[in-house]
Amino acid sequence: MSAEERVREAVAGRREEVNAAIGEQLPIQRPEQLYEASRYLLDAGGKRLRPTVLLLVAEALTDIEPQSEPYRSFPGLDGSPIDVMSAAVSIEVIQSFTLIHDDIMDDDDLRRGVPAVHREYDVETAILAGDTLYSKAFEFMLETDALPERQVRALDELATTCTEICEGQAFDVSFETRRDVTTDEYLEMVELKTAVLYAAAAAIPAILLGADDEVVDALHGYGLDIGRAFQIQDDVLDLTTPSEKLGKQRGSDLVEGKQTVITLHARDNGVDVDGLVDADDPEAVTEAAIDDAVAELEGVGSIEYARDLAQELVASGKERLEHLPENEARGLLCDVADFLIEREY
Amino acid sequence: MSAEERVREAVAGRREEVNAAIGEQLPIQRPEQLYEASRYLLDAGGKRLRPTVLLLVAEALTDIEPQSEPYRSFPGLDGSPIDVMSAAVSIEVIQSFTLIHDDIMDDDDLRRGVPAVHREYDVETAILAGDTLYSKAFEFMLETDALPERQVRALDELATTCTEICEGQAFDVSFETRRDVTTDEYLEMVELKTAVLYAAAAAIPAILLGADDEVVDALHGYGLDIGRAFQIQDDVLDLTTPSEKLGKQRGSDLVEGKQTVITLHARDNGVDVDGLVDADDPEAVTEAAIDDAVAELEGVGSIEYARDLAQELVASGKERLEHLPENEARGLLCDVADFLIEREY
Repeated sequence: MSAEERVREAVAGRREEVNAAIGEQLPIQRPEQLYEASRYLLDAGGKRLRPTVLLLVAEALTDIEPQSEPYRSFPGLDGSPIDVMSAAVSIEVIQSFTLIHDDIMDDDDLRRGVPAVHREYDVETAILAGDTLYSKAFEFMLETDALPERQVRALDELATTCTEICEGQAFDVSFETRRDVTTDEYLEMVELKTAVLYAAAAAIPAILLGADDEVVDALHGYGLDIGRAFQIQDDVLDLTTPSEKLGKQRGSDLVEGKQTVITLHARDNGVDVDGLVDADDPEAVTEAAIDDAVAELEGVGSIEYARDLAQELVASGKERLEHLPENEARGLLCDVADFLIEREY
Repeated sequence: MSAEERVREAVAGRREEVNAAIGEQLPIQRPEQLYEASRYLLDAGGKRLRPTVLLLVAEALTDIEPQSEPYRSFPGLDGSPIDVMSAAVSIEVIQSFTLIHDDIMDDDDLRRGVPAVHREYDVETAILAGDTLYSKAFEFMLETDALPERQVRALDELATTCTEICEGQAFDVSFETRRDVTTDEYLEMVELKTAVLYAAAAAIPAILLGADDEVVDALHGYGLDIGRAFQIQDDVLDLTTPSEKLGKQRGSDLVEGKQTVITLHARDNGVDVDGLVDADDPEAVTEAAIDDAVAELEGVGSIEYARDLAQELVASGKERLEHLPENEARGLLCDVADFLIEREY
């Protein structure tokens, strides 16, 4: 089996349990419409990659065979049972809250193949559904039965992560109207907007289960590395994957004038990035025009640069896992890192 | 001095320190626009009534003379210093976040005499500013230096409170299109939307400082009582205070068809509430028409009913304070309760 197949199996093997846990912790209750709207995107699907990472870290850290212990009372390093599933649900709920609010801000109509929450309901309900998920995530993180000092640390990690996600989104929005964004600024934005939630997913189970600071820090770094690699790979795939596989127009970032690590590298190497495709009429951009643009980006090595960067990050992330005991779950966490850059869509 | 004068003095005496604390904990940092937008409403004013309640509870509970000990290292019941100011800032920041998002949902243009955040900036920035304040409030509640188990309880109270505020707002929105809302449903909505944050402001310092459960519960109840009284009094004032004092059109609730404990009582007593004022052209509603409507509501005892209800709640709230030692700060908490229904605007 390839890394991708093993990851897909690991995710699939936990998805039903994660979904059941979401249903248990976020039942449809009064006021019904609010909770229906809060559940809407969570029920529409999603890979559940972050909860899977969180559960795998718990298993790797404690050297327990994958899926052999109940996640609701998972044996901590000092033996006391921890509800790591509640922490996994918390992280997934934060992810869902950010998507709901981001879709309002970007006025995106579709998400996971269904209407965005503000389209299915309305903007008011979508704001409120996101706000509800926000506080629910903190409630869930308080339901792990971990020692109080560990709960405090986990909550601190969660709160800081949420602040950083907001900062990342603010940077992303501000970049739209700037033409002097540096690669460092872009990578900082990606770290804040995307990578910190992977870092929280990897570090929080270690905190709750009682790992040493060194291990917590290493896992946090693993999450940051793979989260950044994930976003950079997304930027690459937008240019290199056929539209039908991608589920959206290939080169949409170029058409929309979105800056990525690829276009920033190209700009720094003399390419007139704004002139790569004629964005006046997005509908009229042909596959051939995208091909030409991609060829020009390849010519100055920008796509290669992005691929190398993603690969370096993945290598760094995997190295950090050496702080964990060698076992099947750790192998799967390595696979997750590989999968993020090996995937084709 | 009247209760109102004493409360105004208590609030004024702490406002500068609360404002300074907000500036310390929420500095304008990168990304600047996000933090400017997050601070905008906080800097525009506000009575700081909730932080004042929180600080007064700390003083009453520990039997310490008002403003004689530093709020940043306030002596807990077991002597260890607690940063109760950070908790006060947390509560004020939550209040600010809910106002920013509520103004988007209600599409209100003005707040505290300045443009609403989504008018001064835009909807995207306002959503994000609210989201940032949300997680910052949790960060601040983690900076009190209280024992971990007390921090966990305080955070639980904060998270639950935020969820309830969202539920209350959802009920409020759903009531706009319903004509069969009961008084009990209305009071539940008021409790969730408004009163729970007063309850958190009163209960959290007791949790952090190490009070007994019985005292924490009593203070929570005090907050719920005065918070409900506050909203009911708002409903009364909307009908009885001249427009120039109120800062908005008298009777605006009637004109907008908003249901209150007053109109629900009137409806239950045979008044055609929807016909009280002709709401087809809000601009054309005269003072005389409002006078007639108020006279009809007075005729069936609906305004008296609301006043009595508010008074009962205030009496109940004050009774709960008997769990605290008798001192100046407790007297001021009684004054806060009285002030909420004695105020004329």
